[in-house]
Amino acid sequence: MGLASFVVRQPAEYFNLEFSTKLTIPTSTFGIPSTNSALLPMINTLYLPELREMLAESNSEGLRDFCEAIHPARAAEFMAGLSNEEAWEVLQQTQIELQVDIFGYFGKSKQHGILETVDVHQAAQMVAEMAPDDRVDVLQEIDERRRNDLLDLLPVAERRDFQRLSQYPEGTAGAVMTTEVAKLAESLTIREALNEVARQSEDYETIYYLYVVDAEDHLRGLVSARQLLTGMKSPETTLAQIMDTDLVTADVLEDQEDVANKVARMDLLAIPVVDNQHKMLGIITHDDVIDVVREEATEDAHRIGAVDPLDESYLRTGLFTLTWKRGIWLTILFFFALLTAFAIDGFKDQIAEWGWLAVFIPLIISSGGNSGSQSATLIITALSRGHITLSDWSRVVMREILMGLLLGFGLALMGYLASRFFVPDNVAWTNAVMFVVPITLVLIVVCGTLTGSILPLLFERLGWDPAMMSTPFVAGIVDILGILIYFNVAIRFMAQAAH
Amino acid sequence: MGLASFVVRQPAEYFNLEFSTKLTIPTSTFGIPSTNSALLPMINTLYLPELREMLAESNSEGLRDFCEAIHPARAAEFMAGLSNEEAWEVLQQTQIELQVDIFGYFGKSKQHGILETVDVHQAAQMVAEMAPDDRVDVLQEIDERRRNDLLDLLPVAERRDFQRLSQYPEGTAGAVMTTEVAKLAESLTIREALNEVARQSEDYETIYYLYVVDAEDHLRGLVSARQLLTGMKSPETTLAQIMDTDLVTADVLEDQEDVANKVARMDLLAIPVVDNQHKMLGIITHDDVIDVVREEATEDAHRIGAVDPLDESYLRTGLFTLTWKRGIWLTILFFFALLTAFAIDGFKDQIAEWGWLAVFIPLIISSGGNSGSQSATLIITALSRGHITLSDWSRVVMREILMGLLLGFGLALMGYLASRFFVPDNVAWTNAVMFVVPITLVLIVVCGTLTGSILPLLFERLGWDPAMMSTPFVAGIVDILGILIYFNVAIRFMAQAAH
Repeated sequence: MGLASFVVRQPAEYFNLEFSTKLTIPTSTFGIPSTNSALLPMINTLYLPELREMLAESNSEGLRDFCEAIHPARAAEFMAGLSNEEAWEVLQQTQIELQVDIFGYFGKSKQHGILETVDVHQAAQMVAEMAPDDRVDVLQEIDERRRNDLLDLLPVAERRDFQRLSQYPEGTAGAVMTTEVAKLAESLTIREALNEVARQSEDYETIYYLYVVDAEDHLRGLVSARQLLTGMKSPETTLAQIMDTDLVTADVLEDQEDVANKVARMDLLAIPVVDNQHKMLGIITHDDVIDVVREEATEDAHRIGAVDPLDESYLRTGLFTLTWKRGIWLTILFFFALLTAFAIDGFKDQIAEWGWLAVFIPLIISSGGNSGSQSATLIITALSRGHITLSDWSRVVMREILMGLLLGFGLALMGYLASRFFVPDNVAWTNAVMFVVPITLVLIVVCGTLTGSILPLLFERLGWDPAMMSTPFVAGIVDILGILIYFNVAIRFMAQAAH
Repeated sequence: MGLASFVVRQPAEYFNLEFSTKLTIPTSTFGIPSTNSALLPMINTLYLPELREMLAESNSEGLRDFCEAIHPARAAEFMAGLSNEEAWEVLQQTQIELQVDIFGYFGKSKQHGILETVDVHQAAQMVAEMAPDDRVDVLQEIDERRRNDLLDLLPVAERRDFQRLSQYPEGTAGAVMTTEVAKLAESLTIREALNEVARQSEDYETIYYLYVVDAEDHLRGLVSARQLLTGMKSPETTLAQIMDTDLVTADVLEDQEDVANKVARMDLLAIPVVDNQHKMLGIITHDDVIDVVREEATEDAHRIGAVDPLDESYLRTGLFTLTWKRGIWLTILFFFALLTAFAIDGFKDQIAEWGWLAVFIPLIISSGGNSGSQSATLIITALSRGHITLSDWSRVVMREILMGLLLGFGLALMGYLASRFFVPDNVAWTNAVMFVVPITLVLIVVCGTLTGSILPLLFERLGWDPAMMSTPFVAGIVDILGILIYFNVAIRFMAQAAH
């Protein structure tokens, strides 16, 4: 049974299954029910049986209709349950532009699997049609020999494009940009520009910003499609007369996070990427910016939680890969904790003498660790969103010391009250004991806020990722300091009280 | 000295200070140096003296030139150091559309301050020109009496718009959308549509997606500006013939985070917002989506780090507000830690007998807490990015148990080796002791991964924000479990070894 005829015969049913075609949408229930569809699992098995049946029957028409009737992102979801060979066979039934679109929505591992296993000539045809930035992304991650085979089969222009784009280090503007951008001469009139855009629009990633360049590709200005449309009344005006020249640009080696911050702050649709001669190399569009923002935010969150950032989504990351990405950090933190154990071991005589000392160990180290984590989180997110810079360091550190004092005194008050519950009445040094925990709390909380703020700033200063100074890492350092402070405060007070 | 004449006389110098005008850009150094400008502090004091001088001289022309020569975002930065009254006076020198633009880039507190203090009639004029979504945002946060005064002065259409938009709860699509959208009838031809857009484009937030609706505003389809431009060859084609009908829509009450995920996954420029009758209410554009993504990501990161999310950036949040937002969480965590202290207090006889027990307390609880934090971080980020849903819970829990076992055995091996350093040779139960720490580690790490994965899923199930189950919170719970497991394992082994 073909899918196409199925759709025609039973549109309402298909519609309820979040599947619609251009031909058969009943007005009353038009559109796609939106509830929770953002949370659709990436693998949707709803149409797997139909797809497999059509593949078995070599039903080209049905498969083509499937590809063409729905949004490519959704087609990709429905195909995610197919094997690489099956998915590729489905794609082969439709036109190459749509193949590229659907392929772009596959998960990374499926993309790599397909490119590495299917017929290299067919694969090269599709790769040649991909947007230059996507092409570089996917080719750089597949098997090297296969990559070279594919590159050999690409047209010269695309091969050269790959070589140029792939030279930019990951995480820079150059690595995210696409070169498919509308560049126009400033002498063009509005009418000519409109015709040019109408003719070429298929080749461009966006036609909503048109860039005006000189003969050597130096960026001169920007004309938006909005300006072109509203300028149609005077079609002989030249672009030079209407173009905007106060442009925000990205340097080709600029950090992608900085570029994303810029686009977000200025509400741009795209940002041109230039070299140090101000020659226009490409653009980064809004959808790439959203991807960068999400990617960086997730990476930051993972680092804050002491997990090495994942390359794929949680469920798609292999169990051993994930264990490894957690294990390396747990091991590092374990050795910090071992140092804490060594430190406590050094004070075992005191613990033997004053049993209550052991009781408060977790309270002390978690108060220090938590306030340190808070500071690190605040500083890391503020740095990555561009809310603070290194030049603010003294203000930041001053604020953290003040907050540490406020928070420390607050906890100390609670600690003072708490220690009343634990200290046996017959201990001679009650007063001293009542002060050991509170004083330690003030000191360790200030210590935590200082460590949590200074370490990310230091990392930023050294040109490393401040989020690498993950908050449990800060907590690990503060733990050791906490033990040292705690026992030293205790020893001094007990000695003084003994006099 | 006027700024305009200054620019004309010394363009190069101004240019180096990241200030450029349309008139005076030398080709060789065209554009804005991009290095680090994304990290520019929001307050830029570079032009404060000039601005104040021009204000003192009532130099309207100079001030107008300042507003018009540079990007509104940058003008707002340079004005951030002015008082509310001064900033407002500068704005008054330019046309109202530009006033709105620059005002939109001010920080929240400045926006509120200005609207609450300046002449109410002038303020109402500007508010009337704002985009509907921005208007709602700012009006909802100012003093209620002032808000009512301003609303009374708005034109009827804008006032009604405010009332409609402000009914949607914060965090829903309705609260983020704008109503300034191009809606066209499907019977329009491409030529008519182009003329319509050219005439109306000033009023729309985007003209790159044009929505086709029926007489009752039900959404029927979408025509992109790209389609219009490429369709100019056959200007008599109707929109109904070229429009795309497989639309991705957002429900007006849908969570803004889900909407952002949808836009990001489908690479959309904007998403139409509809009610349950599929009536078109507004759109959410790419720049709002980036803001939502950044806002949600920062909130998640803050919750993961146990800080109540900030409403403003780090440096702009008052010291006491920030202390409060940290203090409430530190206090909650402090009471968890107190429970740990109670638990240890219950085992003080064992500690007195076996002194080595105290030494490993931080190692045990931090291993459990860290693995729990990792799980919570992974699950929270995967939920918020739509990579897992509640229906995946059994798979997630199974993975976490397996990872807990793998990580636990890894740490146990290290713990086994570590305990060799600490256990005195003369202890009769050496073998037992060597096993207490390793066995506890396996149990507590599995316990950590389970708690860290189940709690966020449970919160999601209850309709709460899973990120509220911040990772230190998970760590706090796991700490108590860690103490209980540790001492119970120790007591059993020591009892057995004593036989």
